[in-house]
Amino acid sequence: MAGPAGDAVKVVVIGGGFGGAFAARYLRRYSKGSLDIELINSTNYFVFQPLLPEVVSGNISAPDAVTPLRQLLPGVRVRMATVTAVDREQKRVHLLQGSFRTPQSVDYDHLVIAAGQKTNLDIAPGFAEHALCIRNLADAHELRNKIIRRLEHADITRDPEIKRRLLCFVVAGGGFSGVETVGEISEMTRRTLRFYPNVDPSELRIKIVHAGDRLLPELPAKLGRYAESILEKRGVEIVLDTLISSATTNAVYLSSGERIETCLLVSTAGNGPTDFCRSLDIPLRHGKLPVDRCLRIEGEDSVWALGDAASIPLDDSGESYAPPTAQFATREARCVAKNIVKTVEGKEPSTFAFTPSGALASIGSYKGVARIFGVSFSGLLAWMTWRFLYIGMLPGFSTRLRVALNWMFDYVLPRSIVQIATQNTGGAISRRYAKGDVISIPGQHVDGFYTVLEGYLESRVPGGNGQEDFVRILGPGDHWGERLAAGGGLSEGTLTASEDARVLVLRAEDFRKLREAFPALDDYFDKISDKIYAPSLRNHDEGHG
Amino acid sequence: MAGPAGDAVKVVVIGGGFGGAFAARYLRRYSKGSLDIELINSTNYFVFQPLLPEVVSGNISAPDAVTPLRQLLPGVRVRMATVTAVDREQKRVHLLQGSFRTPQSVDYDHLVIAAGQKTNLDIAPGFAEHALCIRNLADAHELRNKIIRRLEHADITRDPEIKRRLLCFVVAGGGFSGVETVGEISEMTRRTLRFYPNVDPSELRIKIVHAGDRLLPELPAKLGRYAESILEKRGVEIVLDTLISSATTNAVYLSSGERIETCLLVSTAGNGPTDFCRSLDIPLRHGKLPVDRCLRIEGEDSVWALGDAASIPLDDSGESYAPPTAQFATREARCVAKNIVKTVEGKEPSTFAFTPSGALASIGSYKGVARIFGVSFSGLLAWMTWRFLYIGMLPGFSTRLRVALNWMFDYVLPRSIVQIATQNTGGAISRRYAKGDVISIPGQHVDGFYTVLEGYLESRVPGGNGQEDFVRILGPGDHWGERLAAGGGLSEGTLTASEDARVLVLRAEDFRKLREAFPALDDYFDKISDKIYAPSLRNHDEGHG
Repeated sequence: MAGPAGDAVKVVVIGGGFGGAFAARYLRRYSKGSLDIELINSTNYFVFQPLLPEVVSGNISAPDAVTPLRQLLPGVRVRMATVTAVDREQKRVHLLQGSFRTPQSVDYDHLVIAAGQKTNLDIAPGFAEHALCIRNLADAHELRNKIIRRLEHADITRDPEIKRRLLCFVVAGGGFSGVETVGEISEMTRRTLRFYPNVDPSELRIKIVHAGDRLLPELPAKLGRYAESILEKRGVEIVLDTLISSATTNAVYLSSGERIETCLLVSTAGNGPTDFCRSLDIPLRHGKLPVDRCLRIEGEDSVWALGDAASIPLDDSGESYAPPTAQFATREARCVAKNIVKTVEGKEPSTFAFTPSGALASIGSYKGVARIFGVSFSGLLAWMTWRFLYIGMLPGFSTRLRVALNWMFDYVLPRSIVQIATQNTGGAISRRYAKGDVISIPGQHVDGFYTVLEGYLESRVPGGNGQEDFVRILGPGDHWGERLAAGGGLSEGTLTASEDARVLVLRAEDFRKLREAFPALDDYFDKISDKIYAPSLRNHDEGHG
Repeated sequence: MAGPAGDAVKVVVIGGGFGGAFAARYLRRYSKGSLDIELINSTNYFVFQPLLPEVVSGNISAPDAVTPLRQLLPGVRVRMATVTAVDREQKRVHLLQGSFRTPQSVDYDHLVIAAGQKTNLDIAPGFAEHALCIRNLADAHELRNKIIRRLEHADITRDPEIKRRLLCFVVAGGGFSGVETVGEISEMTRRTLRFYPNVDPSELRIKIVHAGDRLLPELPAKLGRYAESILEKRGVEIVLDTLISSATTNAVYLSSGERIETCLLVSTAGNGPTDFCRSLDIPLRHGKLPVDRCLRIEGEDSVWALGDAASIPLDDSGESYAPPTAQFATREARCVAKNIVKTVEGKEPSTFAFTPSGALASIGSYKGVARIFGVSFSGLLAWMTWRFLYIGMLPGFSTRLRVALNWMFDYVLPRSIVQIATQNTGGAISRRYAKGDVISIPGQHVDGFYTVLEGYLESRVPGGNGQEDFVRILGPGDHWGERLAAGGGLSEGTLTASEDARVLVLRAEDFRKLREAFPALDDYFDKISDKIYAPSLRNHDEGHG
């Protein structure tokens, strides 16, 4: 298909999930290869999101939950890059690419936005600091590694309080993703605990916290209740009609007032617009890009949107919108592709319509729930249906075969507990503490340089020899750990949150390097330590910093 | 077996590689479960190192190259922790464990040190900053991801110089590990290039640089030559009798004076003692712990060492020592275990003796070289022997089955190019530049806050409107990028190394957070920018930092 200048008409697709990848595939098919199609994504693979909880549990290996976009999309240009802006006047996409993130631009005749949504971690204080998501492969790896690290630590610690905290896992949100995740965590821990001789199964607590009055609101009540009874039989605690009101390094706090000691929280509870969609200067509808019934952004003639990023009306009532599921996204992709081809040919685009045939969820241990063509069923049959349908939806024969074989192995072979090291231990992270939380105790390794972002901390070092304790209050902008983090030392005092607080922690290794490299910073800390610590207490210096 | 106090005799093994894991296994077997055995390792898995190059190429998936230590070692306590010190007086091992790295200690009656070696990156300037190793799973992942990232970038860049650099891969060292690695890189790129339409196979350059006069010095000359001819046929360039004298972000420099543009260097060339072995206060012999012929540390009655960490005499000549191979390590493990059991029983330990039956290496693409029972052979037969022997050595039936199936698949299915995101983009890293290297050009995204560690850089911003360029020289302790890194902006000027230089780069995101959190730092940069930039040039501020 040729544009006005005689070149092939160029379609740029932003996003490589179900919406974007399938749109590119259908565009190629319907245009019979006459369009110039380029897909831009920040990773080089398509994520089969419904399988991510199984990556967490080790049921399938990571490469089997994803497919390289280049393999999936023959005839489509694939660009691994981050989109920074869209200039709709010039019909140009601006992006950063390569290891040095060089700015580049790509021109388009038609633009398809399938950028998805992001997990909204603003739903409660502490989620941004402490909640894990499961949106991509790195998330699934991180969650898996954290669970294994908690079990390894629980097996060797001598402190019963720490052990209790390490062995409590909390999932926020009781929809498909939350139920599948909690099911896989329960399955994984149940099958691996025998390798941890010092952990008794009764010590493990796995909780799912859901705002509604039953799990799986997407399915009929009967199936939600069935999922609940299966999870309960396996020891999962189901907390309904409850929100998590805040989270810290050590605990989550429920709207009921309850405090649960945990250092592993997974959030599947809220979604919101990506920074990219926010940056487009298009007023959002329900946090999504507003499209007309033909999936074109309202008021634009060459910008289209679909999938989770788009608010897609299913009729003219203004009340019914397409749900954010893979099933819908792939149908929307077909509609967008047809409409772009039609538009290029000078024809009128058609409206999107789709009635899904059903919905399914796996809850682990060969149990599932399903509603297909109006029939609800559950148990092994639903689980097998789920598996077979997903194998069918998996792109590529080799992936299908591998996943099928992995699932087959899973019946007979022990579950692996390999912790794939991510080495992601550098940089600045934030942490949240509740009033009274103990952050560091005497004898503990100081893991970084702490700067207070919000709230107050109290540092207390025992005076010794009958002297009073040396107490220091730290507020926003104050810092702690500058000497011990740089020197690799152990704390002599106790650091406590005297109010709810947020801190920024630059890991010890990074801080040490920066301080060594940068004389002004080193001078500053030398000077400030003279100011902070009174001469008579200079002998305690080691304990504060 | 009971100690003097009636408790079971406690044996602590440090290290979970071939030496440590097999020592723990044999200790359990020979003592018939009567010893209390604890193995301490920093990861919870045993790495099957000879398979790591195949993880890089995607031939086998990561979990198949490793086995969880707990699964491998029933009846042995496993502690995931980092050993910090050994108190041989008190017979106590000090360590850090858990996410907060709490100090702990473990007492022993007998100690087995199997801590291995580390890749020595001090062999030439720039190796510490830029060379990758392949010692563990994270290394293999990182190398694989980097290769894929280079191919992705090469496919979309418009700059021929950058493309040439991206498509050159250099391996240092021509022993087993180097040859297997270069073979797998060649195999992987050859099979995946068809997914990168803008990369022509002729543009790819893969080099192996070796100090000796032929590859595989461990094997007879004929086999080394055979490996060379196979690799050359596949387009690998073999550079013999040559050392890499230095490396930078953009190039490696050879002892011949040649400069090779590359941004991917793998080092398999030098090994050295770990920090732990150095810290033991035992004088090292050839960089290793000196043991007697019974594998006991000289002068100690309850500390043993084996594997790559130990210097093991094979006779009394003082000239013949055990080579650092997996074959030897597993035999040494058997000897250590027997000797500890004998010592506990009050018997005399025996001396270590082993004559290996042969050596094998895979060079990818169904080709290998082997020398077994004095017979040298090569090609498909050697490759199949290698595979079968390794499958046999793999611990655990499930791992064997998976690896065998993966290898079978590999004949028929396309190679995956999934880049498993490691998200390891935070923290402070160092980089090395050679005189004249361009570090940042106008319009480039500033990726971090730069502090000069050694050497000098020149920052030059065009004056514009007929004014002179604004030039600033940066020496050790000076910094660059403080405003652009914090603001996410693009450089307006050029930053060049005016001498060989090393810089510390704190990634932009971490620097921004730190600067926002820490008012003193922010003040400092505000003040310094007034000092650095003359008022008349204030309009250029954006370009410097």
